[in-house]
Amino acid sequence: MKIYRFRVDDEIHHGVLDGESLHPLSGPLLGDYAVGERSIPLSRVTVLAPILPSKIVAVGLNYRDHAAERGNPLPEEPLLFIKPSTAVIGPQDMIVYPAMSKRVDYEGELACVIGRRAVRLSESDRAEDYILGYTCFNDITARDLQDKDKQFTRAKSFDTFAAIGPCIAAGLDPSNLDIKTFLNGKLCQSSNTRNLIFPVPFLVRFISNIMTLLPGDVITTGTPAGIGPMYPGDTVDVQIEGIGTLSNRVRKVGETL
Amino acid sequence: MKIYRFRVDDEIHHGVLDGESLHPLSGPLLGDYAVGERSIPLSRVTVLAPILPSKIVAVGLNYRDHAAERGNPLPEEPLLFIKPSTAVIGPQDMIVYPAMSKRVDYEGELACVIGRRAVRLSESDRAEDYILGYTCFNDITARDLQDKDKQFTRAKSFDTFAAIGPCIAAGLDPSNLDIKTFLNGKLCQSSNTRNLIFPVPFLVRFISNIMTLLPGDVITTGTPAGIGPMYPGDTVDVQIEGIGTLSNRVRKVGETL
Repeated sequence: MKIYRFRVDDEIHHGVLDGESLHPLSGPLLGDYAVGERSIPLSRVTVLAPILPSKIVAVGLNYRDHAAERGNPLPEEPLLFIKPSTAVIGPQDMIVYPAMSKRVDYEGELACVIGRRAVRLSESDRAEDYILGYTCFNDITARDLQDKDKQFTRAKSFDTFAAIGPCIAAGLDPSNLDIKTFLNGKLCQSSNTRNLIFPVPFLVRFISNIMTLLPGDVITTGTPAGIGPMYPGDTVDVQIEGIGTLSNRVRKVGETL
Repeated sequence: MKIYRFRVDDEIHHGVLDGESLHPLSGPLLGDYAVGERSIPLSRVTVLAPILPSKIVAVGLNYRDHAAERGNPLPEEPLLFIKPSTAVIGPQDMIVYPAMSKRVDYEGELACVIGRRAVRLSESDRAEDYILGYTCFNDITARDLQDKDKQFTRAKSFDTFAAIGPCIAAGLDPSNLDIKTFLNGKLCQSSNTRNLIFPVPFLVRFISNIMTLLPGDVITTGTPAGIGPMYPGDTVDVQIEGIGTLSNRVRKVGETL
């Protein structure tokens, strides 16, 4: 099941995809709802970020090949950082290249969306029970500032640096999904989630032992090798098997299109 | 003016302190309100974290003496990290010592609370116009995990690791305030905000050029020298001139009192 968030006739809904149409939910996605009868053609709507998380917890260096290309040793435990909710954009929004950076990179990632409050899960808890579904994530990074600061936060927190979408795919097995990133149509990253050093259920349990995960929170699982720069005018696509393609264009700060 | 957030008779209010009593606001703190006539004795209420921020942006190594005690060079620009909203506790809550760490430190800090949406402020913008007021902040840190991860996020994101309060002091000049931290009554940190490498208005402008600051967001400005460990049973007080004292006890995870 693929869940979209979208605007139509100045109203915002979550809805389930059925062919080329969306059926809006009768209640809140994170509460009680039924799938409504009404059908809206996908072509009529503006697709929005599928969720507005209270926090985004991100994992660094979670693919061996990416740790190698960055010259970092493999982490013994997941290496966490947080991206602010103000960085979130959806599939039809543009990535804004900030004045403070000269090198902004794409990082295609699989993200999971939390469906149920998760506090200090143990090995016997099924992490899957706390996951609403999966989405594509572009963990946009000002590489020059990351190298300068060492701390990842500034480099990864600019407005528009957390592209999410196009939908939340529920009922997906996250352990074996092809993940690809394209820059202007050219394949740049190509891997599979079976190469994750710390797989999704491990991450959910680990993070829940540090901070409470709230419904709607997003965990993004790290990027494979093949990172590289983007420039204003470029288009970046993150494509994950069973979810779809998250496509965003890049523009300069202050530029209107 | 000192603004408290508190619970009384199962209702939560913001209110203004007048002697030993609180006058609840007639509307939302971050919207239009008047100060009501009703008067509630401070002794009758449970004092809560004065604000629930969408994000907490924290600054590392912002006092020379603390950078020296940590063996870090002085940063050329503010070094940012983010603490999640799920870490927030108030003055009557306890700091929970997590199972994952063997060394948890206090860090007393001056924090400011944003009152107005701030996006890419320039040198000519008055940062003060975007600040609602000031509060005490304990930037609790699992020092062993900070040293292990290098990235600050895990070490500073545990539930209960962002103690805020006791109130928001509006109309305060943040440039010359004594700041002290006490462990079980013994003075451990003692400095003045004039020693901040990057002062509050600079931080607000700088951060607003990275991420949009929303009303209620908190910027905590860094800790002076004198950091040290706390253990279950300890009491930590962060005291700032013109604001008051934020006092929290420490307990083990899973312990009920």
